[in-house]
Amino acid sequence: MSVTDELLANNDRYAANFTGPLPLPPAKHVAVVACMDARINVYGVLGLNEGEAHVIRNAGGVITEDEIRSLAISQRLLGTEEIILIHHTDCGMLTFTDDEFKKSIQEDVGIKPGWAAEAFADLDADVRQSLTRIRTNPFIPKKDSVRGFVFDVATGKLNEVS
Amino acid sequence: MSVTDELLANNDRYAANFTGPLPLPPAKHVAVVACMDARINVYGVLGLNEGEAHVIRNAGGVITEDEIRSLAISQRLLGTEEIILIHHTDCGMLTFTDDEFKKSIQEDVGIKPGWAAEAFADLDADVRQSLTRIRTNPFIPKKDSVRGFVFDVATGKLNEVS
Repeated sequence: MSVTDELLANNDRYAANFTGPLPLPPAKHVAVVACMDARINVYGVLGLNEGEAHVIRNAGGVITEDEIRSLAISQRLLGTEEIILIHHTDCGMLTFTDDEFKKSIQEDVGIKPGWAAEAFADLDADVRQSLTRIRTNPFIPKKDSVRGFVFDVATGKLNEVS
Repeated sequence: MSVTDELLANNDRYAANFTGPLPLPPAKHVAVVACMDARINVYGVLGLNEGEAHVIRNAGGVITEDEIRSLAISQRLLGTEEIILIHHTDCGMLTFTDDEFKKSIQEDVGIKPGWAAEAFADLDADVRQSLTRIRTNPFIPKKDSVRGFVFDVATGKLNEVS
């Protein structure tokens, strides 16, 4: 049995206790952008319930064109007004460089990716980089509450980056 | 008090019961790509615990360059081997077209986004589109278990797209 099959069996149990459809727009009018890291359970970390917030995630929790696309749709079509960014301690993105990752791919498959891997060497600095990418982007209309945090995987605590 | 402040208060309670650091690589060697929709609690839907799976999310749960970046890092550096794609019923991406969304942005701020909005008219067809974007991508090495689902927001059930 694959892990996917095991998780589908879990879904049967989830559906058995499911209480029906909620509205499409996020009830708390907030969008979260977080790293894909397995240890960040965004709903748990922020005490969110189903239906309350958009959750956008990728390697590093960085802001690239696709996060701008998602945030633009979130704010312009679905009414979110606040943005919470979450990076975290012990992040995989701290363990390599773009150059070495892309070189390893080129050696493996013969093609060098045209995209940046978005590795970073300083957590707080990269949270600030992501905040700045949002604040300077013309397609995101609501920027009054855009705040960035580092989640501590040892304590479960969010620490704000100023 | 902003919603962000309210969620930070929730985080204090989460941290108070936190049980300490887990390993960086996902224990179940699986990466999930899902829509950002507020009603999809990925940990709940799949019965996942902290530390078990990478979770990548965006508007639609579509596969663009940034999801390829995240999946390449997930598989090549952090050992995941299976991919689960999740779209869902009542998705916002079914309610507009790329052309009209980009035109509305251009009318608002004077600039037309250079990116695709990735709206779609058929859920199952877009799951297949996303599966094909992964299966044909040279940077994703492990493709033996790449499966796509539509989450039913009325029942909580994942229905596989074949």
